[in-house]
Amino acid sequence: MTETRRPDTTFWVEPAWIEGDRLRLSHDESHHLIRVHRAQPGTPFTAIDGEGTAYDCVLETIEGDVTTGVITKREVNRGELPFAVAVLVGLPDPGPAEAVVEHAVPLGASRIDFAVCARSGKPALGPGKLERLERIARAGVKQSRRCRAPLVVSSGSLQEAVAALPPGLRVVADPWGGRIDAFQEAYPAISLAVGPPGGFDPEEYAVLAKAGFQPISLGPSRLTTETAAIALLSVSRNRLLPKGLGQI
Amino acid sequence: MTETRRPDTTFWVEPAWIEGDRLRLSHDESHHLIRVHRAQPGTPFTAIDGEGTAYDCVLETIEGDVTTGVITKREVNRGELPFAVAVLVGLPDPGPAEAVVEHAVPLGASRIDFAVCARSGKPALGPGKLERLERIARAGVKQSRRCRAPLVVSSGSLQEAVAALPPGLRVVADPWGGRIDAFQEAYPAISLAVGPPGGFDPEEYAVLAKAGFQPISLGPSRLTTETAAIALLSVSRNRLLPKGLGQI
Repeated sequence: MTETRRPDTTFWVEPAWIEGDRLRLSHDESHHLIRVHRAQPGTPFTAIDGEGTAYDCVLETIEGDVTTGVITKREVNRGELPFAVAVLVGLPDPGPAEAVVEHAVPLGASRIDFAVCARSGKPALGPGKLERLERIARAGVKQSRRCRAPLVVSSGSLQEAVAALPPGLRVVADPWGGRIDAFQEAYPAISLAVGPPGGFDPEEYAVLAKAGFQPISLGPSRLTTETAAIALLSVSRNRLLPKGLGQI
Repeated sequence: MTETRRPDTTFWVEPAWIEGDRLRLSHDESHHLIRVHRAQPGTPFTAIDGEGTAYDCVLETIEGDVTTGVITKREVNRGELPFAVAVLVGLPDPGPAEAVVEHAVPLGASRIDFAVCARSGKPALGPGKLERLERIARAGVKQSRRCRAPLVVSSGSLQEAVAALPPGLRVVADPWGGRIDAFQEAYPAISLAVGPPGGFDPEEYAVLAKAGFQPISLGPSRLTTETAAIALLSVSRNRLLPKGLGQI
């Protein structure tokens, strides 16, 4: 009976391929559903459109490697935090950037900007590297059962990155910062900033202060860019979770 | 003048090699100090003994590849949290285990136990794998400027792992758990538990509940073992940081 169990993963559906109560999966996603999970007509599965909706479906037809599903339930923002989280990370090396995406996406990041900072020592990420990070982000969305794909970008400067942020609570990891007492209300969006290896320079801290970023310490040890980004995101999102949100 | 600047890293010193106001570095550490950082007599450097003390030193003599330093300052618990943090992780694959150590050590973990759980599907880590994880842990202690090396172990069962934990606050990541309201006082030690891939099974949750673990949700998305471990550690340690600790 394993063939009719709902696969323990979600499938990606192009928004344009949803019509009324039916949706069609791409060749790749269909292949995964049929060949790997051995789905047959009647097998339930869940698809997400990457734009904020999850679709519970029942597999209807298989034609070659293209599957059609009947939508039995739609749910907006399933698996999503009730606020947007923009993460601004001073551009690190490729490995650490991948670690940030790998952990920050399941934790709910809605935007990740690897911004070139004074101490980054390298130019902004090009299309090839961004595409690789986007693939990691998509895998993270599916694996973590979110339904909204985060934006992964690489701004050419801190100023540019700050200008693109939404209004709302803004927090920067800073060894000289204080404890987190800023999280008193509900925010539609929060922005978190972590310096590149070597940290933000004094001018950059001034840019962030002017933009309303509050400095917060992550404790007595020195953290790498990637560990600090994951820790600041974890701390901030959990402080802002409404009571009972996780009790689903 | 770069030769007389303090290297931006710490060096490991065997406790037995500290005598009075002098210490001696091993061949490897000396090599790193002299060859990589080009230290000379008079160069300041910092050593840690892995047992909780940091030593600010001035390089005195170089004989072959063995260096002696004069201790100018000793500081107990430099870079350390004011509480011990034991992290109990349901044994995952090697890559995720390494990710846990890589991030959890800079965040202050004092003990990491990769415990065999019902859904781990593999035996406890042997000496070779533990040694590899210990090397990562040591590198993390040095990089993060802590001075106490965490214990990395792999218990054969959850019961065994729980029996080895210190008294104090105990928290388990649980999709059905609530918000964190437990962090009201100062604790000498806390214990954090995260299930293996697939999660703890119901019997294991019962074992943890009986041992005083309070269930806490990490939000609406599904997290991997490694992301959950890092997130739970980040959230817990930051909630318990005394005010002003980070303001050094």
